[in-house]
Amino acid sequence: MKRRDFLTTAAVGAGALAFTGCHRAEETASKGSANINKGKKVTLKLATSWPAHFPIMGTGVDTFAKRCGELSGGTLEIKVFAKNILVPAMQVFDATSAAQIDAFHSGVYYWKGKNSAFSIFGGMPLGLTSEEMITWLKFGGGYELWRELYGKFNLYPLIGGTTGPQMGGWFKKEIKSLADLKGLKMRIPGLGGEVMKRLGVNPVLLPAGEIYTALERGTIDATEWVGPALDSMMGFAKAAPYYYTGWHEPGSILEITFNKARWEKLSDEHRAIITAASEEMTGNMLQEFRYKNAKALAELPDTVQIKTFPKEMMEAAKVALNDVLMDESAKSDDFKCVLKSYEAFYKLNKPWDDISTKNFLEIRS
Amino acid sequence: MKRRDFLTTAAVGAGALAFTGCHRAEETASKGSANINKGKKVTLKLATSWPAHFPIMGTGVDTFAKRCGELSGGTLEIKVFAKNILVPAMQVFDATSAAQIDAFHSGVYYWKGKNSAFSIFGGMPLGLTSEEMITWLKFGGGYELWRELYGKFNLYPLIGGTTGPQMGGWFKKEIKSLADLKGLKMRIPGLGGEVMKRLGVNPVLLPAGEIYTALERGTIDATEWVGPALDSMMGFAKAAPYYYTGWHEPGSILEITFNKARWEKLSDEHRAIITAASEEMTGNMLQEFRYKNAKALAELPDTVQIKTFPKEMMEAAKVALNDVLMDESAKSDDFKCVLKSYEAFYKLNKPWDDISTKNFLEIRS
Repeated sequence: MKRRDFLTTAAVGAGALAFTGCHRAEETASKGSANINKGKKVTLKLATSWPAHFPIMGTGVDTFAKRCGELSGGTLEIKVFAKNILVPAMQVFDATSAAQIDAFHSGVYYWKGKNSAFSIFGGMPLGLTSEEMITWLKFGGGYELWRELYGKFNLYPLIGGTTGPQMGGWFKKEIKSLADLKGLKMRIPGLGGEVMKRLGVNPVLLPAGEIYTALERGTIDATEWVGPALDSMMGFAKAAPYYYTGWHEPGSILEITFNKARWEKLSDEHRAIITAASEEMTGNMLQEFRYKNAKALAELPDTVQIKTFPKEMMEAAKVALNDVLMDESAKSDDFKCVLKSYEAFYKLNKPWDDISTKNFLEIRS
Repeated sequence: MKRRDFLTTAAVGAGALAFTGCHRAEETASKGSANINKGKKVTLKLATSWPAHFPIMGTGVDTFAKRCGELSGGTLEIKVFAKNILVPAMQVFDATSAAQIDAFHSGVYYWKGKNSAFSIFGGMPLGLTSEEMITWLKFGGGYELWRELYGKFNLYPLIGGTTGPQMGGWFKKEIKSLADLKGLKMRIPGLGGEVMKRLGVNPVLLPAGEIYTALERGTIDATEWVGPALDSMMGFAKAAPYYYTGWHEPGSILEITFNKARWEKLSDEHRAIITAASEEMTGNMLQEFRYKNAKALAELPDTVQIKTFPKEMMEAAKVALNDVLMDESAKSDDFKCVLKSYEAFYKLNKPWDDISTKNFLEIRS
C-alpha cells in the first residue's frame, strides 16, 4: 500500500486550500441573526472539564466569562461551572448537544469517540504548532469543517485557548533507543498514544488523581501531562527523573463550544462579544503558558534531567503516525476529508515556517 | 569595558521580573474611570501610518474599528484615517499626544527619536519573537514600562498587531562572507540598521515609494521590507534575486495608542471593548501574516534564491548588537531600565523556548 505523503514539505499552491466542505449538500446552517434579543439580559450556563479555577485553563475561562460581562455592559452573563457540578467532565459535549447546558470549555481530543475526525481539530503529533493550528482553522478552511461536523451534534465551536508545545513526559528510566520503549507502560491518550502503541509501548489511561501514585509505585513506567507549569503541581519529578521534550502535542487546541440553536438565537452583538473574548482568551492563555512554563522550568529540582528522545525513535514515530492516519482515513470519510485540508495547510505552511521561525530560532542560539 | 551578557541563556529566577518601574515616584496615573459616559455614543478619530486599506496592517485596523462598533452595539465609533489625510504618517504620535486626534495605529520603532527606549517595545534584532514579545509585555513587566514612558507624552499604548518574523532583505549580490557587506548601501532602519552599520554597511533611509527604483538602478545594493506577502507587492524580486532569511525583526510590535486623557475619560465598557478588539486584531494579524507569507513564498518567481546569511556575519551581528545596546544604555537611563526588564524576560524565556518550540521544529523537520 502506498504510504501517505503526509510529512513531505513540498510547497503546494493555494488552490489546494480552496477545498472547504466535507458534505457540501448539508451546509444549510441558518444564517439568520436574532437581534430581537438585543439589549435583553442573557444568562448562559457553561460547564468545563476542569476543576474549579484550574490554573491557566480554568482561570482562563473564568476571565473569559468575566470579560463577556464587561464587554456587554452586563447584558451577557456566562455562569461557569467546574467539572462534575452540573455535568461530569466527560459529558459536557453531550449535555451541550442536548441543550441541557448552553456551552462547554474542554479539549477537542476528548471527543474522538463521537467522530474520529474531531481529534485533528485538537492537534496532531509531529504536526502544527498552536499558532499554525489557529492559522489553519481561521485561514486554511479548518473552522468551516469543524463547524460543519460539530453542526451534526447541534454544536458551534470556537477556539477556547491553546497550550503551546507540550512536553513528552516523565520517565522512570532513560530511553536510549527505540528498543527501550518495548513493553513500557505509559499514561498517554489520543493519537500520541496510538503512535506509541505502534512503537511497542502499552498506553494506559488513568484519571488525573491516580497518575502520581501509579508512577511512584511503578504501576506505570512513564506519563505525559502538559508542561513544566502544570506538571510541577503533580509532583512527577519525585517519581520519574527523566523529563522528555515534546513531539506528540505541539499545539493542542481547547474549545468553547455552544449549543448551536442557542448560539443562533443570540444577538449579533453577543455573538461578537463571545468571539472577541474567546480570541483574547486564546492569546492570553498561550502567553500565560509560555511565561509560567519558563518560570517552572527554571525552578525544577536539580534531580530532573531534561532529555530528547533518540532520533531513531522520532523517525519511527513519523512512520507510525502515517500508518495511524492511513488507518483512520480508511475507516472514516470525515477523517479523510479533514486530514486532506490539514495536510494542504501543513504543506503550504512548512516551507515558510522553516525559513522564518525555525531558521531564526537557530540563528538566535 | 566588560561586555554586557545580553545573549547568554542562563536561567534566572522569577525574582528578576519583579522589577516593574523606571520612575516609581512618577507612577501616579489616574485610575478613576468615567462611567458617567456609559451608553453615550462616542466617536474617536484614529490616524494610521499606512496607506488606506494597506494589506494586513491597514485592513487589520479597519477590522478593529468595525469590531469596536459591533461589540458596543454602535455606541463606540472609531473613524480610521489613512496616512496624510488628517495627519502625516510620521506625525501621528505628536498629533495624538497633543490631542489633535484621539489615537493612532503605527509601528513603535518609528519613535526612537522621542525616547531611544521606545525602540525596545517595537522589537529587537536577534531578540524575542512576536509571541515572546507579547508575553514580555503582558507578563514580564513590559507593558508597565511602556505605559509609564508613553504617559510622559500623554499617551496610552496597546499592542496593535505584530508582523511575525520578517525576512532579512533582498540583495543584488550574494553575501558569502562578512567582508561582502563592506560599503554596501542598504535600506534598513532602526536597531537593525545600527548593527549593519557596525558590520560595514552604509544604511540608508528611503520612503517606501522610492525603494524599488533605487534598487533597480543600483543606487542601493539591498533593501529589507517585511516578508513575502508584502515584499511581493513591491516587485523586489525583479531587481535583486537573493532573498535572505531574517534576523533583525523577529517579532515587530505595532501599536494602537490613545491620547491618555481621552482614554481615561472613556467608560470601563468602551476601554474593555477597545482592549479586547486589539487583542483579537493582534492574533488575527499574526495568523494572516503567516498564511499570506506562506502563500506568497510558494508563488515567488523561480529566479529568487532564498539564502541564509553566513554564520560569521550573524556572530559579528550579535557582538555589534551588544555594543549598540551598551552605547544606548550609557546614553539613556530609560533605555537601560527597559533593557534590564527585557533581558530578564529573555533569559527566563530562552531555556523554555529552546526545549519546546525550537526543539520541536527541529524534530518535525
